[in-house]
Amino acid sequence: MYDIIHKKRDGGQLNKQEIAYIVKGFTDGSIPDYQMSALSMAIYFQGMSAEETAELTLSMAQSGDMIDLSGINGNKVDKHSTGGVGDTTTLVLLPLVASVGVPVAKLSGRGLGHTGGTIDKLEAIPGFSIDMPQDQFVANVNKYGCALIGQTGSVAPADKKLYALRDVTATVDTIPLIASSIMSKKIASGADSIVLDVKTGDGAFMKTLDGSFELAKAMVDIGNNVGRNTIGVISGMEQPLGYAIGNALEVQEAIDTLRGVGPDDLAELCLVLGSYMLVATDHAANAEEARQMLVDSLQSGKALETFRSFIEAQGGNPAVIDDRTLLPQAKRQVAVTLGRAGYVAEIHAEEAGTCAMLLGAGRETKDSEVDLAVGIVLHKKVGDAVAANEAIATLYVNDESRLTEVISRLQAAYVLTDERQPVQPLIYGVVTKSGIERFV
Amino acid sequence: MYDIIHKKRDGGQLNKQEIAYIVKGFTDGSIPDYQMSALSMAIYFQGMSAEETAELTLSMAQSGDMIDLSGINGNKVDKHSTGGVGDTTTLVLLPLVASVGVPVAKLSGRGLGHTGGTIDKLEAIPGFSIDMPQDQFVANVNKYGCALIGQTGSVAPADKKLYALRDVTATVDTIPLIASSIMSKKIASGADSIVLDVKTGDGAFMKTLDGSFELAKAMVDIGNNVGRNTIGVISGMEQPLGYAIGNALEVQEAIDTLRGVGPDDLAELCLVLGSYMLVATDHAANAEEARQMLVDSLQSGKALETFRSFIEAQGGNPAVIDDRTLLPQAKRQVAVTLGRAGYVAEIHAEEAGTCAMLLGAGRETKDSEVDLAVGIVLHKKVGDAVAANEAIATLYVNDESRLTEVISRLQAAYVLTDERQPVQPLIYGVVTKSGIERFV
Repeated sequence: MYDIIHKKRDGGQLNKQEIAYIVKGFTDGSIPDYQMSALSMAIYFQGMSAEETAELTLSMAQSGDMIDLSGINGNKVDKHSTGGVGDTTTLVLLPLVASVGVPVAKLSGRGLGHTGGTIDKLEAIPGFSIDMPQDQFVANVNKYGCALIGQTGSVAPADKKLYALRDVTATVDTIPLIASSIMSKKIASGADSIVLDVKTGDGAFMKTLDGSFELAKAMVDIGNNVGRNTIGVISGMEQPLGYAIGNALEVQEAIDTLRGVGPDDLAELCLVLGSYMLVATDHAANAEEARQMLVDSLQSGKALETFRSFIEAQGGNPAVIDDRTLLPQAKRQVAVTLGRAGYVAEIHAEEAGTCAMLLGAGRETKDSEVDLAVGIVLHKKVGDAVAANEAIATLYVNDESRLTEVISRLQAAYVLTDERQPVQPLIYGVVTKSGIERFV
Repeated sequence: MYDIIHKKRDGGQLNKQEIAYIVKGFTDGSIPDYQMSALSMAIYFQGMSAEETAELTLSMAQSGDMIDLSGINGNKVDKHSTGGVGDTTTLVLLPLVASVGVPVAKLSGRGLGHTGGTIDKLEAIPGFSIDMPQDQFVANVNKYGCALIGQTGSVAPADKKLYALRDVTATVDTIPLIASSIMSKKIASGADSIVLDVKTGDGAFMKTLDGSFELAKAMVDIGNNVGRNTIGVISGMEQPLGYAIGNALEVQEAIDTLRGVGPDDLAELCLVLGSYMLVATDHAANAEEARQMLVDSLQSGKALETFRSFIEAQGGNPAVIDDRTLLPQAKRQVAVTLGRAGYVAEIHAEEAGTCAMLLGAGRETKDSEVDLAVGIVLHKKVGDAVAANEAIATLYVNDESRLTEVISRLQAAYVLTDERQPVQPLIYGVVTKSGIERFV
């Protein structure tokens, strides 16, 4: 291990055997934390080549269970987001993509964040369960086109251990390690094709556009290097996506979107990501053809019907699709106004997300209870005109203990100007194995 | 600690409080090894300023006992070498400098290496003991001008712990950490003035001249920043210093040098280092005046007499000065020839040192027994002519188990050419608080 640290410190390239040795030794404890953290810092400064990153990812994926989805017919696709605020895309994409014949076998987590994970959101639907045996999961995908279960603890344990160490040694912010961490879990989860939604901007993990493209490129290279057709979409997260931030609220928004009446930005992003999910699995020749297939499915109601059968197959009450009052309801709704007029120039996404978390929509710590009913619905987004006493948002509240703080923080998250400002782009580009394509 | 690692990773400067926090926490175990190794790697890449390095050094010195030498009259001087092959200077300098009135209170170690440490060498003198109470140590320096005791385990424990961690995480080779490691022990050892012999070349820790000047500058800055008048001399270690490599053999060579019949390079280096020891303690106005004082002491026999009383004061038999057979004797002497004629162009110092160690003169591991009698005496040095059957060296041997290997490795350490090659300089320059002065 000393020689490996020394080699990387001096800018050398680690080979397959060395990387396998590191991951095995670190996982079984024979390589101590203090050597692994020194190596991580050396990687922070010296980087890793695409080949090294792919080897690291594969070794970490193979450190635990490799999910076997071979029982599912066709080219299985998975979608991953690097995490934003109000990101309801997974709830929409699962049935949307499945409705045109692409199998989606989704393993998801709960995680920390402004709202719960995809699992928490779906559990806002009465009766919905993520617990099912592996064979039923496979059977459900074959029958309904999509299914979702919780991630088990044995997916990429090497990544879990390494991430915990990086988190306390200031070695998180380095593209090769971020990329391999995300991709190791995706690869262990068994999908044949992967579409990545790499967020950029204020509410994203990557704040800069160049950094986001670089991260997307690193992940796409990993996926393609290990035989998974991988495409990365770079999407803006300067303001929250859609209107809803909160679990039941986002389920409602997903239903609206599948009905064709969702927020423009959410609907558009779902069409773009969905199109590349079809392209990645060879269900469409190009993004334009794929988009038409998805639009047709939305307009025909087929996508919404797929959502209905998906909910039903997992024990949920599909009546929520037609009756939103069946979802958990907050005790109180509180309108937030700004007290002055103008045009919305910015909504600090991360701060808006924190407001939702403070209302109880997300987890501050691993053991926090998520309140599925609460959250925020924005009424005004960037570019919109606001009158002095017009509500910019409605808070859905149960626990009022931090309500005053939330109101003032949400007000401060809005920046008004006297003239209308240009809206930032939603989609910045796409990264495929052929290279980087910038749209703006 | 996370914030400190992050700050250093991004090239920030750590303040006094942060450095004190690191050293205290790492020493008491509240800062885990994996954070300290990540910080060390960040320092490897980002460096440390002179102020940071001085603070780190002082904190590490203060992590254990600070030796109190205030009972000794006058400005106490210490000398430290970064380590070479056949380095007998300490044995010469102790009595030489003391003989002109500069008190030398030396704490020394055994250590790993090609030969033993200064303590091992002196223990080749029958009866010589390094065990004495602190008050006798002080009294001996006042009475005889010099005394030597073993370093206790509580000198700069933070440095000891950090060095062990750096050693297994490829973070040794960075100037600020090397400099602070050496200087923390010197500062804890209580001397008022410090002269550093920074070796450069094949047989030295620092192989490049620029690196050696940089290390010297870092250590001189530390010393002067914490109130110790510190001077660094950069000396060549392209070939072994003097002729002898081995404990009793080096004692004999030291006696020869004090008598004025030692090897030219050893004698010259002792005069240069000794001169700066006098300058650092304000016993001479400049190096030229100091040199004359030392030459006078050698020629008058005063330096040798000081060695005699020093040996006697520590329980040793001073008769060794006149009768070398009283020193441990090896069973066998083996002449080494090269079988061809030429001029010595190079003697790989490190390899020659390893040969001495393989004969038993040094410690391969902490628990190795040192054989004080064995080693190598070189007869030919760089620039010398060699006939085909002329002995280039004599091996002093007890254990013959690796003799064949030693002979062939020592032969291979000699490079002969048909024409006489220029001899590398012995002294490259000096670093004082006024700056760097290069002699060549």
